[in-house]
Amino acid sequence: MIKRALSRGNDELRQIELIPNYYPYAPGSCFVKFGKTHVICAATIEERVPLFLKNTKTGWINSEYGMLPCSCQDRTERESVKGKQSGRSVEIQRLIGRALRSIVDLSLLGERQIKVDCDVIQADGGTRTASITGAFVAVYLACQKLLKHGKILENPIVDHLVAISCGILRNTPLLDLDYSEDSNAEVDSNFVMSSDRIIEIQSCGERRPFSEEEFMQLLKYAQKAKCELIEKQKLALGIQ
Amino acid sequence: MIKRALSRGNDELRQIELIPNYYPYAPGSCFVKFGKTHVICAATIEERVPLFLKNTKTGWINSEYGMLPCSCQDRTERESVKGKQSGRSVEIQRLIGRALRSIVDLSLLGERQIKVDCDVIQADGGTRTASITGAFVAVYLACQKLLKHGKILENPIVDHLVAISCGILRNTPLLDLDYSEDSNAEVDSNFVMSSDRIIEIQSCGERRPFSEEEFMQLLKYAQKAKCELIEKQKLALGIQ
Amino acid sequence: MIKRALSRGNDELRQIELIPNYYPYAPGSCFVKFGKTHVICAATIEERVPLFLKNTKTGWINSEYGMLPCSCQDRTERESVKGKQSGRSVEIQRLIGRALRSIVDLSLLGERQIKVDCDVIQADGGTRTASITGAFVAVYLACQKLLKHGKILENPIVDHLVAISCGILRNTPLLDLDYSEDSNAEVDSNFVMSSDRIIEIQSCGERRPFSEEEFMQLLKYAQKAKCELIEKQKLALGIQ
Amino acid sequence: MIKRALSRGNDELRQIELIPNYYPYAPGSCFVKFGKTHVICAATIEERVPLFLKNTKTGWINSEYGMLPCSCQDRTERESVKGKQSGRSVEIQRLIGRALRSIVDLSLLGERQIKVDCDVIQADGGTRTASITGAFVAVYLACQKLLKHGKILENPIVDHLVAISCGILRNTPLLDLDYSEDSNAEVDSNFVMSSDRIIEIQSCGERRPFSEEEFMQLLKYAQKAKCELIEKQKLALGIQ
Amino acid sequence: MIKRALSRGNDELRQIELIPNYYPYAPGSCFVKFGKTHVICAATIEERVPLFLKNTKTGWINSEYGMLPCSCQDRTERESVKGKQSGRSVEIQRLIGRALRSIVDLSLLGERQIKVDCDVIQADGGTRTASITGAFVAVYLACQKLLKHGKILENPIVDHLVAISCGILRNTPLLDLDYSEDSNAEVDSNFVMSSDRIIEIQSCGERRPFSEEEFMQLLKYAQKAKCELIEKQKLALGIQ
Amino acid sequence: MIKRALSRGNDELRQIELIPNYYPYAPGSCFVKFGKTHVICAATIEERVPLFLKNTKTGWINSEYGMLPCSCQDRTERESVKGKQSGRSVEIQRLIGRALRSIVDLSLLGERQIKVDCDVIQADGGTRTASITGAFVAVYLACQKLLKHGKILENPIVDHLVAISCGILRNTPLLDLDYSEDSNAEVDSNFVMSSDRIIEIQSCGERRPFSEEEFMQLLKYAQKAKCELIEKQKLALGIQ
Repeated sequence: MIKRALSRGNDELRQIELIPNYYPYAPGSCFVKFGKTHVICAATIEERVPLFLKNTKTGWINSEYGMLPCSCQDRTERESVKGKQSGRSVEIQRLIGRALRSIVDLSLLGERQIKVDCDVIQADGGTRTASITGAFVAVYLACQKLLKHGKILENPIVDHLVAISCGILRNTPLLDLDYSEDSNAEVDSNFVMSSDRIIEIQSCGERRPFSEEEFMQLLKYAQKAKCELIEKQKLALGIQ
Repeated sequence: MIKRALSRGNDELRQIELIPNYYPYAPGSCFVKFGKTHVICAATIEERVPLFLKNTKTGWINSEYGMLPCSCQDRTERESVKGKQSGRSVEIQRLIGRALRSIVDLSLLGERQIKVDCDVIQADGGTRTASITGAFVAVYLACQKLLKHGKILENPIVDHLVAISCGILRNTPLLDLDYSEDSNAEVDSNFVMSSDRIIEIQSCGERRPFSEEEFMQLLKYAQKAKCELIEKQKLALGIQ
Repeated sequence: MIKRALSRGNDELRQIELIPNYYPYAPGSCFVKFGKTHVICAATIEERVPLFLKNTKTGWINSEYGMLPCSCQDRTERESVKGKQSGRSVEIQRLIGRALRSIVDLSLLGERQIKVDCDVIQADGGTRTASITGAFVAVYLACQKLLKHGKILENPIVDHLVAISCGILRNTPLLDLDYSEDSNAEVDSNFVMSSDRIIEIQSCGERRPFSEEEFMQLLKYAQKAKCELIEKQKLALGIQ
Repeated sequence: MIKRALSRGNDELRQIELIPNYYPYAPGSCFVKFGKTHVICAATIEERVPLFLKNTKTGWINSEYGMLPCSCQDRTERESVKGKQSGRSVEIQRLIGRALRSIVDLSLLGERQIKVDCDVIQADGGTRTASITGAFVAVYLACQKLLKHGKILENPIVDHLVAISCGILRNTPLLDLDYSEDSNAEVDSNFVMSSDRIIEIQSCGERRPFSEEEFMQLLKYAQKAKCELIEKQKLALGIQ
Repeated sequence: MIKRALSRGNDELRQIELIPNYYPYAPGSCFVKFGKTHVICAATIEERVPLFLKNTKTGWINSEYGMLPCSCQDRTERESVKGKQSGRSVEIQRLIGRALRSIVDLSLLGERQIKVDCDVIQADGGTRTASITGAFVAVYLACQKLLKHGKILENPIVDHLVAISCGILRNTPLLDLDYSEDSNAEVDSNFVMSSDRIIEIQSCGERRPFSEEEFMQLLKYAQKAKCELIEKQKLALGIQ
Repeated sequence: MIKRALSRGNDELRQIELIPNYYPYAPGSCFVKFGKTHVICAATIEERVPLFLKNTKTGWINSEYGMLPCSCQDRTERESVKGKQSGRSVEIQRLIGRALRSIVDLSLLGERQIKVDCDVIQADGGTRTASITGAFVAVYLACQKLLKHGKILENPIVDHLVAISCGILRNTPLLDLDYSEDSNAEVDSNFVMSSDRIIEIQSCGERRPFSEEEFMQLLKYAQKAKCELIEKQKLALGIQ
């Protein structure tokens, strides 16, 4: 049996906080906390799109992800000093961008781009899923601002977007792993979800292959967490 | 209903070829074809390990992935000229390395590293899954050479490793998508599998979220393909 | 006459906060606020020194500086994505490192290095001087930890270290400029100071040359602020 | 006396193969084999020219050269991972581009550019000369396609283009050196030639200076090989 | 007491030479010598401005600084081989650019840019201040050429610009330190000055903090040197 | 008929100057002038060799080449700012290194490396051949210093080394082309020579192929120039 910090149940989330409008200037921002994992998500709007969308009246959303060098237990090298982003950072920011685009009607956004910076201030496992959950709030707020200023006429956001990590540790399925759990888990899965369907699954047998049954159990935990996270988003955004 | 090239069935693989020992020098190599997707996989052995494994008597396997600039329908920029690998390349080579490590007992490998180069000569969808399927053959052959030369005493390979892509195109689940299918699919999934379990799932709703039922259908197709791919590997390796 | 935000006097500091031990893991850290300028300073210890100090029994202190892309009014490009630090960042981190080294007896530190990461979460003018003032606290705490663990026997910190910006706006000397003031100032000066002397002066006539008299007035303001900042540091560190 | 592999005579070429139209999509391509040296040459057309040719109604041809990491006896580091092309690669691709431009009337090409990718799949000496010989075929085919589609009205190719390496090994002049010969040769020469004249000579005394007489002998061998290579090109292209 | 090379007095400059029009092509150039510190300053004119000045009818001046690898006592690594400029180079070229802009009326320059290359041929301390003093001559000459060709109607240069280093060595204030002095100095100050005011101060207690009195002494030395340097510039430019 | 600047004959060199010991510190240096082409060559000694020579008791010589941005008629971009050396620079420095190694007995050099920096101060054609001719003098002087300090016991230099460019302009063979000739020449050849043989030939039909007869004429001119250049080297080095 697994004893989790703060006597948390196996299918229980850590304490989640979504603080909207963290920044005075960025059109949308959110400080998101999953326990001791803290991420600032900030959405900015650029009135231009990538080349391949020019003259298509369609918008774009992408993301950049970074960690402060001291956000982890051991200092990681600063990516700007190394001269490039790590493969892990690139992978994560591509995931965040894909996830956001899947719940936004880009044609309603007009020929502009929303860029979401997700910067990890403190890392204790699940930074990518916290980033996605917070990025949704930042993008939602940015779209509200576009609406308010008459730049767009209809809300381009068509669904909620949350993400959560699950894993198998000593053969026990767990929800929302912290760093000490995650770094020892046999299986590590990330689920990105809309209100009623799945947007992306990344499930990896880090230390051993896994069976279909095990996978289904993780998915079940994720489905449960999804509802709670959507409630938190609604609360933060003042929508019901 | 979907009409596939060469009257292929929805759950049918393209023509698979695994040509072992493609290279005269590399200790293990395999030219793998999934239809018109052609990849050269070559495994080389280095008698040193990454820093974090020094003095642990444990080995390592990693991979590098690249595409020839003219392997695609439209020429892609040469990564060495751009000065860095694309995010996509980095993502894929990390996946290949992870997959290979999951079916090798690294402690039996000794303090050495196997590096697998997967170079796409021609691309028609599914290059990452073809790479993994071919990389297994290359690594297997390299380990045979280590055994033959007395460098290791026991085969460190503990299971088969294959990978296959599935997807949903116009609401129809399909196995082993070619480029024309893949670039229009709503959902794109990659399954990495050992003989009886799952090693990694990457499933992404590129154009729309997907339901649990849809996902299970894709997984079923992958399970079916797995058996055929393992047969092909056995044939290529001359094992039963 | 200049009307400053919050009816601040010309020689008055913004609200200063120094929150010690912001991070759970880093041996020393400080969240520093000069009004709406917020910086996280974190000191980590590496048990090795740069090549030129090897076998000298002497330690080293250096710094890395970065800004979150959304910390400013307008998003700045992420340095890790551009592939290098800006000239401005390099300049600032060299300044911070130099300043810290000047108040530490490096021979008492032993052959180890303290690295101070200064990451600007929110920028409203004076990020380099806030960084230095906060970095002192972080380094002080890290040295306390070294003492406590018996790694060093004597406190290597020989003096206080604070920094403050002054400037001339519409011919009026001002202390501690915020961004709206700084970006319009004719003259911009940064003073780095120990308890009774000067460590570094950077004074630049951004829009016009300045006279010796004007410079002396700025220096006088800085001297006054120095005392207040040292008091804040003492308070944060619990020393008198 | 030198004993060459496969009892080859000193002035004899290895087995040469030129497989035209290797790629389904690229407008011109050729898989070229000089014995165990295998190169894929692919010509693509871009409807724009480098800046310095803008509005001159003149076209351009250039080349990029690369080797698969496992193409050599010992694995070479992947250039995209190192972050730049080696000096050798840059040197070779500049040579290939220059050679091609010298036998094409660029004004007949119109304001477009032909880029020729030469990718070495397997290397056994003479990759640059095999690349040039194959690149000619790829460019010829690309120009045929331009003619066929009415993009140009006259064939811009004004002459044949072949290249061959010669060298002096243990004081014996040799034609078309393989890797084991090349890496031990005292003198190494590359000749780029049109049907009746010389386009470029690179002759280098790698291990000792050489005399005018020795050089003339190498040139004589190259002249002889030229005729055979042009015959191979005619055959591959179906021209007489 | 300090014994300086060539029996130089503490407040005495080294032998200064300003050789105008060193280059045949560059519109303005100056070979400047401060003793054994030799710098070539060359000003070139580009008929375009940085993006942020487009359509503002305002010009720009910036600078690039470099050292030949063998200009110092010990060879320094070539920055183009390392792949980037050092932090020190970036810092210095930013300083030179700022200094030049402060004595030029950029609106009189029109929408064009003057770029000043300062390349250190031989370094013996004070390369940045020699660069600024020489760069003024190069820019002055370039502006004369613009006037002569009718590109501008009024001389945009509004004041002289010189720079000088001072320092404290063994508690003795010194003017214009050579390398052997500079590398041992406790305090190192650089003063950039117009004919009657200060443009920039960089004063750094490299080995110990310094007092206000010490600083004022250095400033006094700099004021004295300023007059001599301006005389040298007038002589070189043939103006009185 | 060709009218050359300063009524120079077709087979006549420009005014050649070789100023030895240009630098006070570098163990060997030479300022070389071929007319208005000026290059500083400086040889420094490092007491270590590249990895592949470790423990072989054999030395190495290599070279780095650069041009000051303003050395040409039109400013060229600074390579350190671009972040890499141009292909041309890399090609030239490889040539210089190869040439130097061919006339030095590396086993007599011991396990140390001579690095020769060739920096073009002013460029008017023939910078690579001037560099080689001057680099020989720098290396010779550096070896003298090694002998004098007892680091080596025998002079490792076994022959002279000079280089010269020839070309065909308007069908006329010319020796030692200046920039205005070179940039219009049909054929451009560089000859690197020892006292009685050839070390390297680079001959390129820039605008048209060339015949064997034309090539032999260029070689004849180069042979003639060789003698004069060796005389200049002897004079500069004070040897006969």
